[in-house]
Amino acid sequence: MSLDSPAAKPHERLAAALDGDMGEVNALIRARMASENAPRIPEVTAHLVEAGGKRLRPLLTLASARMMGYSGSHHLRLAATVEFIHTATLLHDDVVDESRQRRGRPTANLLWDNKSSVLVGDYLFARSFQLMVETGSLRVLDILADAAATIAEGEVLQMTAAQNLATDEAVYLKVVRGKTAALFSAATEVGGVIADAPEDEIRALREYGDALGIAFQIVDDLLDYQGDAKATGKNIGDDFRERKLTLPVIKAVGAADAEERTFWSRTIEKGRQEDGDLDRALTLLNKHGALQATRADALAWTAKAKDSLARVSGADAALQEMLADLADFVVARVS
Amino acid sequence: MSLDSPAAKPHERLAAALDGDMGEVNALIRARMASENAPRIPEVTAHLVEAGGKRLRPLLTLASARMMGYSGSHHLRLAATVEFIHTATLLHDDVVDESRQRRGRPTANLLWDNKSSVLVGDYLFARSFQLMVETGSLRVLDILADAAATIAEGEVLQMTAAQNLATDEAVYLKVVRGKTAALFSAATEVGGVIADAPEDEIRALREYGDALGIAFQIVDDLLDYQGDAKATGKNIGDDFRERKLTLPVIKAVGAADAEERTFWSRTIEKGRQEDGDLDRALTLLNKHGALQATRADALAWTAKAKDSLARVSGADAALQEMLADLADFVVARVS
Repeated sequence: MSLDSPAAKPHERLAAALDGDMGEVNALIRARMASENAPRIPEVTAHLVEAGGKRLRPLLTLASARMMGYSGSHHLRLAATVEFIHTATLLHDDVVDESRQRRGRPTANLLWDNKSSVLVGDYLFARSFQLMVETGSLRVLDILADAAATIAEGEVLQMTAAQNLATDEAVYLKVVRGKTAALFSAATEVGGVIADAPEDEIRALREYGDALGIAFQIVDDLLDYQGDAKATGKNIGDDFRERKLTLPVIKAVGAADAEERTFWSRTIEKGRQEDGDLDRALTLLNKHGALQATRADALAWTAKAKDSLARVSGADAALQEMLADLADFVVARVS
Repeated sequence: MSLDSPAAKPHERLAAALDGDMGEVNALIRARMASENAPRIPEVTAHLVEAGGKRLRPLLTLASARMMGYSGSHHLRLAATVEFIHTATLLHDDVVDESRQRRGRPTANLLWDNKSSVLVGDYLFARSFQLMVETGSLRVLDILADAAATIAEGEVLQMTAAQNLATDEAVYLKVVRGKTAALFSAATEVGGVIADAPEDEIRALREYGDALGIAFQIVDDLLDYQGDAKATGKNIGDDFRERKLTLPVIKAVGAADAEERTFWSRTIEKGRQEDGDLDRALTLLNKHGALQATRADALAWTAKAKDSLARVSGADAALQEMLADLADFVVARVS
């Protein structure tokens, strides 16, 4: 199948269209993850970086900058920056969640140890910071510093709110902005900023990234209850077993009667799960239409992403269309 | 005892001389460690920040800027920045070292958990980044980004080199620059930069901070073998028990005969320690003059710190003298 073929997925078409840029970004990532003094650093980083993630965040930065007619080279540094920030947060997340698998491979904390993951994450965060300083744009630095704070705050909020039935959709949205949308929106916004796009188009790019990130995370949380394990690589019910209070459950808890509330309190808050509890959870999710309502939310965020993108008069219509298709593709997984 | 009295310690006199600035820095730290969304963040931060560290790093920034005649307010932000970076590294270090006590109190990882320490550290690092962006100085950002990378690299290097007898003094120096001197030298350098000092004086301030930090860490490592537990709060031999290859041991290993090498290999590399091993280690350290040689190194770095400082024609002679006294004070602990 050709990557130009409409059958290729939008992120694959983006990667093909930005192939030259992405090659330079990958070279930059390899150069900057090196450490003359501490070989452990590139070992750990390479394990994760070369495991074949989709490179969605750097693609968003490259596409945003190119779409706005940028012809310099700072977008390459910014694309490497967002990938380093993402990689650093994955390393720390896997320590925090005690995860054992990531991208189909054992996690770094399992292969090496928690220490290596914490310290190499810190190193990559510092390296991302050096890269963005090289662009010489204080505005870009401001955006990425804010994103970094929102990411960390969202992670702490998730940790403290995850098993509390009082968590509502507003808190969920803050967590999702932190864990996913903050970096998506920063990735698209800095692309526009570095290309010196008009203010209202920079804002539209930011809102596209924000809505895309939220849709992406909602779909991820939905797939955990209704996905096809073969297609998604996730097992049904992982979030339930890990007692994560995601959007489908928040909606079901909001509609629960007293007896159902007791069930959610026992399984999520207290973590006393028994055989058959996942089935019962799925029954309750369906009874209250929680999965359908969650899907409707994801579609609404996708529509918002596309509306925002439509406000941009980009110089490259083909890239702009791929970004719109990307928004559709994100929710197509649960259509 | 008055803080103006010569009997007060230099860092206490510095704190008294910079009392007004330091009050504003503390207010800024409290304001910026807040998080509307995640109350866990200020809880964990306050536990560490309010445990009464000496605030040496922010004092270095304030003193450097004021000494060079700075009259703006960005030095306050930079002082808070270096304290946040320091606090973030302490939180992560305690996770990495599985420490149970810090500044005479249980560590955050013990009181809460490793997750909180990792994520709150990330948050403080992001907050420090926001603070420095507010100064609008790309040069300051460059210095602090480099310092952050050196710190993380030094930590990884320490982790991988600590129990390897091949570690030599050059590696030790890299580790020490990472764990201590990088932030000391960045703290003094950014003070000079924000005050718009002449280039050679900025360099001299940087070299003062670098040498002071190295002397500080060497003394710390020396006190572990010859300190007075009551005065230092450290127990003799902690580093030996934790199998840390610090400068005194590196010197003794360098002079060891075959039988002594076997001893160091068993106790440090393999970690098979028995009763009486610490006494034997101390005997070997004394036999080869390793403690004296280590102390001589610390004194040489102190002299270098004072020489560098003497190259600065600061606008405030009193502050400059306190910084020189601080260098003497650092090694006075082992004189």
